[in-house]
Amino acid sequence: MIIRQIHVTPVAFRDPPLLNAAGVHEPWALRTIVEIVTDEGISGLGETYGDLGHLTKVRECAQVLLGLDVHATNEMYARVSATVGDVVTDLHGLTGVATKEKSVDRVFSPFEVACLDIRGKAAGVPVVDLLGGRVRDAVPYSAYLFYKWAAHPGADPDRFGPALDEAGLVAQAALLIKEYGFSSIKLKGGVLPPDQEIAGIRALHAAFPGIPLRLDPNAAWTVETSIRVGRELDGALQYLEDPTPGISGMAEVAAAVPMPLATNMCVVTPEHLPPAISARAIGVLLLDHHYWGGLVRSAHIATVCGTFGLDLSMHSNSHLGISLAAMTHLAAATPNLTFACDTHTPWQDGQDVVLPGSLRFTDGAVPVPAGPGLGVELDRDALAIMNEQYETCGVRARDDTTYMRRFEPTFSTRRPRW
Amino acid sequence: MIIRQIHVTPVAFRDPPLLNAAGVHEPWALRTIVEIVTDEGISGLGETYGDLGHLTKVRECAQVLLGLDVHATNEMYARVSATVGDVVTDLHGLTGVATKEKSVDRVFSPFEVACLDIRGKAAGVPVVDLLGGRVRDAVPYSAYLFYKWAAHPGADPDRFGPALDEAGLVAQAALLIKEYGFSSIKLKGGVLPPDQEIAGIRALHAAFPGIPLRLDPNAAWTVETSIRVGRELDGALQYLEDPTPGISGMAEVAAAVPMPLATNMCVVTPEHLPPAISARAIGVLLLDHHYWGGLVRSAHIATVCGTFGLDLSMHSNSHLGISLAAMTHLAAATPNLTFACDTHTPWQDGQDVVLPGSLRFTDGAVPVPAGPGLGVELDRDALAIMNEQYETCGVRARDDTTYMRRFEPTFSTRRPRW
Ligand SMILES: [Mg+2]
Ligand SMILES: [Mg+2]
Repeated sequence: MIIRQIHVTPVAFRDPPLLNAAGVHEPWALRTIVEIVTDEGISGLGETYGDLGHLTKVRECAQVLLGLDVHATNEMYARVSATVGDVVTDLHGLTGVATKEKSVDRVFSPFEVACLDIRGKAAGVPVVDLLGGRVRDAVPYSAYLFYKWAAHPGADPDRFGPALDEAGLVAQAALLIKEYGFSSIKLKGGVLPPDQEIAGIRALHAAFPGIPLRLDPNAAWTVETSIRVGRELDGALQYLEDPTPGISGMAEVAAAVPMPLATNMCVVTPEHLPPAISARAIGVLLLDHHYWGGLVRSAHIATVCGTFGLDLSMHSNSHLGISLAAMTHLAAATPNLTFACDTHTPWQDGQDVVLPGSLRFTDGAVPVPAGPGLGVELDRDALAIMNEQYETCGVRARDDTTYMRRFEPTFSTRRPRW
Repeated sequence: MIIRQIHVTPVAFRDPPLLNAAGVHEPWALRTIVEIVTDEGISGLGETYGDLGHLTKVRECAQVLLGLDVHATNEMYARVSATVGDVVTDLHGLTGVATKEKSVDRVFSPFEVACLDIRGKAAGVPVVDLLGGRVRDAVPYSAYLFYKWAAHPGADPDRFGPALDEAGLVAQAALLIKEYGFSSIKLKGGVLPPDQEIAGIRALHAAFPGIPLRLDPNAAWTVETSIRVGRELDGALQYLEDPTPGISGMAEVAAAVPMPLATNMCVVTPEHLPPAISARAIGVLLLDHHYWGGLVRSAHIATVCGTFGLDLSMHSNSHLGISLAAMTHLAAATPNLTFACDTHTPWQDGQDVVLPGSLRFTDGAVPVPAGPGLGVELDRDALAIMNEQYETCGVRARDDTTYMRRFEPTFSTRRPRW
């Protein structure tokens, strides 16, 4: 099964004004859709970031992968590595330090996923079966709450409503749980002063007793603040995610707070694992196949974590259905991925590049798509529309900070900020 | 592709009187051949140890795997784990501590290999392609030297000749290199007092300048002896394998000798990796898919090693062609498996359960078999003959010590012995 064509298509879809430590989501979120077609006419899908620097590298690498067999992922990785070279393509700063290794893993990922999609289709089995087979039939996801504005400035309010205080958060959680059935909650923090976010978590804890809660301030806090917040939230948090920057800061916090620390920022490539493990900086790694080099490499990293007693959850950025399918297959095949995974799916609010029907939430979990490969099919009309949106939207790289400063010129991204 | 039949066949083949710290190889070596047949009539092969306790567990597990899809390796592993239970099936003591985890991995392995063989055949690709594709076209192996007698007592001399001194070792190395083209040498030590083995290595170093050498006394030495030997062999050894028992002893030696230490004894399951890494006990792990849970789990362990800066080589016990094919596919797909692998192939001296032609040595390396799956085909006549040999040979578990004591009643297996 030889790779004959690779189509790389950037897309844009509407995104609500979700707040985080870097600023606020712009009205358009970007993704890149990769479609590989083999000599036998089987096609496979991958999805990755849409930032222009990254897109450019994905396009360059697509050229050097033509002619390879879809199984030759080691050779693909070597060619991607040579093509990306020493360039470090940074994203928006919320997925941790940028390194050459991470840039390579990130560019390689959508090609690897597309090849697994093809291999699954050719063998007549879902991708989960290429990863060892399912250990669960459905993958639980968490309600991913954001502090948010009622509307993008100058635009009509979205249907999710504002969330700038406890009442707004509780209402948002109630909406997401009603619509998706989630039974875990994650709050993106680092937006309001820590005491307000403590109050937010406490309000959620009171409103949804028994539902596991997590808080992720994206390293907006000092070690001291992190320890204070962690101690104040004893009993309320399942884990605390990236309270403070860096492995050594995280280790200081981890030693002093009662709950495990999770990260998708201070450990983002294999080379970060030894120092983080040695410093006991984290208890939970948030896997993300988009920057851990695809599904098989993520499965290997899951074994590293299991070997060293780290628990696993899964990280999410704004994404579409191809990514949700890939995340679901990976999580379904990973015995030690036991926490509900993160997903931005609700904020996508029905927009997608895949045809409806194969991905659904039941009690907060996504059943593994039944069809061969990823089990999702490209909606070519939707792809064309979303590509047109990309062409006209004017956004070329996610930049929450610049957008925020249009409305709040003195907005600080200093981290730690509090 | 549903598993409909599993044939489990013990075999015996003639083995020369190879000496080691546990005693001497008996005249018959045992293996178990596993053949899985699917509902579509595709069959796949696996090979594992032949010791009766292990064979019994393999037979029991074969029963509980019927009806599963060949992709469902996570479920297979769970069923094998439940079936093996808390039983620890020990082997001959030369592959390190016996644990429940290792027993499960060891029983699971041949089934996993057979399923990969089937998947490769169904997809029309070699097993190496199911592991990420080849990073090398041929896998280098080392000349695996043994101190040995000229013959089993009472039998005719074998064609390899005696090797109880330096001249014997050099002659043996010359024979193996002439016949196979090896360009690395491993000497199984722990047989003669350390100074004689030092002399053996020095003789090999002088006779084959530039060829990397390794010495494996199977933990027969104290820490003090290990350090002394390691220092005396500075410049002559590529690595020193398992000089002394246990992670802490190995760590003491590692800190004091100039070459890396390798192991297939003190790190034999994932749970041993954290303490060994933390203690800096080893520099090289000798992978062995027969006890690291098959090919995919071994590939995961290779990533663990790469992540923590451990180099990789590959361990061998007496084996036949199915194992050699599996080892070759795994090594060909593993970027960081850079040392020549161990193999007992020369001692098998042409006996095999696979048809000739698909496995050959060129310049000491085995080209990845070209056919789909493992690329080897069962020789059913040979299998029947070797099974008959199993039935009549009287050996039911490898026991080098008892056999040795027939001729040397006071033979000591105390380890460390020197
Ligand atoms: Mg995060
Ligand atoms: Mg050894």
